[in-house]
Amino acid sequence: MPSISKKGHQMPESPIRKLAPYAEKAVKQGKKIYHLNIGQPDIKTPEIALKAISNHSLKILEYSSSNGSEQYRKKIANYYSKHKIDVNQDEIIVTTGGSEALLFAFGSILDTDDEVIIPEPFYANFNSFSTASGAKIVPVISKIEDNFALPPIEEFEKLITPKTKAILICNPGNPTGYLYSKEEINKLAKIVIKNDLFLIADEVYREFIYDGNEHYSILREPNLENNAIVIDSVSKRYSMCGARIGCIVSKNKEVIKTALKFAQARLSPPTLAQIACEAALDTPQSYFNDVKNEYVKRRNTLIEGLQKIDGIKVAKPKGAFYCIVELPIKNADNFAQWLLESFDVDGETIMVAPAAGFYSTPNVGLNQIRLAYVLNEESLKKSILILEKALKKYKD
Amino acid sequence: MPSISKKGHQMPESPIRKLAPYAEKAVKQGKKIYHLNIGQPDIKTPEIALKAISNHSLKILEYSSSNGSEQYRKKIANYYSKHKIDVNQDEIIVTTGGSEALLFAFGSILDTDDEVIIPEPFYANFNSFSTASGAKIVPVISKIEDNFALPPIEEFEKLITPKTKAILICNPGNPTGYLYSKEEINKLAKIVIKNDLFLIADEVYREFIYDGNEHYSILREPNLENNAIVIDSVSKRYSMCGARIGCIVSKNKEVIKTALKFAQARLSPPTLAQIACEAALDTPQSYFNDVKNEYVKRRNTLIEGLQKIDGIKVAKPKGAFYCIVELPIKNADNFAQWLLESFDVDGETIMVAPAAGFYSTPNVGLNQIRLAYVLNEESLKKSILILEKALKKYKD
Repeated sequence: MPSISKKGHQMPESPIRKLAPYAEKAVKQGKKIYHLNIGQPDIKTPEIALKAISNHSLKILEYSSSNGSEQYRKKIANYYSKHKIDVNQDEIIVTTGGSEALLFAFGSILDTDDEVIIPEPFYANFNSFSTASGAKIVPVISKIEDNFALPPIEEFEKLITPKTKAILICNPGNPTGYLYSKEEINKLAKIVIKNDLFLIADEVYREFIYDGNEHYSILREPNLENNAIVIDSVSKRYSMCGARIGCIVSKNKEVIKTALKFAQARLSPPTLAQIACEAALDTPQSYFNDVKNEYVKRRNTLIEGLQKIDGIKVAKPKGAFYCIVELPIKNADNFAQWLLESFDVDGETIMVAPAAGFYSTPNVGLNQIRLAYVLNEESLKKSILILEKALKKYKD
Repeated sequence: MPSISKKGHQMPESPIRKLAPYAEKAVKQGKKIYHLNIGQPDIKTPEIALKAISNHSLKILEYSSSNGSEQYRKKIANYYSKHKIDVNQDEIIVTTGGSEALLFAFGSILDTDDEVIIPEPFYANFNSFSTASGAKIVPVISKIEDNFALPPIEEFEKLITPKTKAILICNPGNPTGYLYSKEEINKLAKIVIKNDLFLIADEVYREFIYDGNEHYSILREPNLENNAIVIDSVSKRYSMCGARIGCIVSKNKEVIKTALKFAQARLSPPTLAQIACEAALDTPQSYFNDVKNEYVKRRNTLIEGLQKIDGIKVAKPKGAFYCIVELPIKNADNFAQWLLESFDVDGETIMVAPAAGFYSTPNVGLNQIRLAYVLNEESLKKSILILEKALKKYKD
């Protein structure tokens, strides 16, 4: 029998998916599960986008350009200008989700055994994309005590080797909810320029910033034109996760030229979804205001509720819709499984994402979980109650 | 300034795209171009698929499952059973086009420097995907004199090394139009079983088989369960290139399990397009009959026309909608550029794909072009006339 590649063996399984069989079993037993484990929002997609789909007049569902329809890219450039980001349509390649944008970025700048420094905890699929690219993630730890702020820049400097090609951040952060300040971005800019590295920023949660803070894109940082690569996606912005449309943005012409070769190989991003996305760019501001208000309410409900539980530590998120919670237990993997298998409050339980999967360093974050506040307030309140009761009953 | 990866530098540019700037200039000069260079059919997408899109009732455009919606996979399995291929929904992963299916297959079975043997000329993007995966293509030449039939199996055997992991075929072939017989598949099966290799078959043109021939999928070959991986796509079948939906199919559980990890990393295939594809599976047989008749007419018109031109050699395609043509010239790259830049018949010219880009061996196929017969008969007739006149005038 022919054998699977080493790379294939090394591809990590999603930390969230591991629990899926237990969730399935719980549902079969008649339990109701509150899903705090995934980032699939319950927010409605803007009507303007859904209508554009219903009203399509296609006779042939043709390929689009490999870099995405020009009309759509022009509108994206205009969107960025509203966010004080000065790019044109030729500095943008439309991709099949933010995932593909990251894959193109990794392919364009990383060879086998090259290294990318990433503050951990980080989006778990960064592991998968680096494995797929043959590259290596070098984690630098950020702490719940610091609200997951940027680790001291000296910690990055210590890790830079001749193999280091990039620093990768997610801003605001999944899974931390932390929003990097202009000063923090400025520090990162200095270190990447000094060491001839790329700075990749996953900015897909740009709109989800709370408490009057402002998002500061790496594309706004002066002198960073050759180093900055932004990963973007419509998934969360318009609650259009299933569109699978994102983009890679860079003012570095070599990066775009190289990423385009990867884009040409796969021919084109999805045509139908680009129709929806182009329309979505005309979504009225009121939609975003409503969504933001909703998330602020949910975040406040969740954080205030969690803070009342004995022995829990939680970093208050400034953006996105996740938070990392430290629990008075030893092993969150076991706890998460137990919640599904052996616990319920009146037939209801919660599903959480054990945080160890968001760390690259072994044995870190074992007592942490990531919660996504993508459920309505009532469900969140019930979920907090379930967590509180579970912690009282659970024995490691 | 940070530098691009070696891999990025090595990524080949599409042999078709190289000519794009010349085509643009020609259009600006007011020339009309007949596009024989690309496989974007002018055939209408089945109405049933387009209507399913118009009639969607989505409120939230959510992720689908990473392996594609179960309902759609069940319908795909049923489609295969009609083609005498016995697979179930768990042996199928829905992908973002055939391209992603190939990327998952390569990722699952190839490590850096591993080798894949491919009969050339082959689909040019195979080069891109192997470069992206860090693997190496080992070509085995098939000849226009043999109509691009399978090269003698001893030629494959000579090329097998400890690094060889797979043989990859496209059946029927892009760019050759050749249809492998059951006997040829049987020979390939024997050699992959004997040497513990995978046999990957790109079968996206399964429906486009002419002259009463029958397609014989590698999944129909007995004893090949552990070795066979099929790459499939809806792009040409339903003239839905822009859907970006394909699938990877294998009865080898390890392959599917590993490919699924790649699929999970990119979250899900496009949701909207899956709605169209599910509906497309109910396309009436009459649609395919009409399309096939149309392609047969086009093929006959093209081949008969070409055979009348002095000094031209052409392999008559048994499937797909491409053919390789050998011209009485030295360098088809120059000729193709000249056609766009310096030639026209009453303001009209043709765009062709130089075939060298479909070969991996250097300096082979330099005097060949690939033509796609995706235009209507009248356009094809005019194109043949233009080619004939061009060849009379052209000097290498």
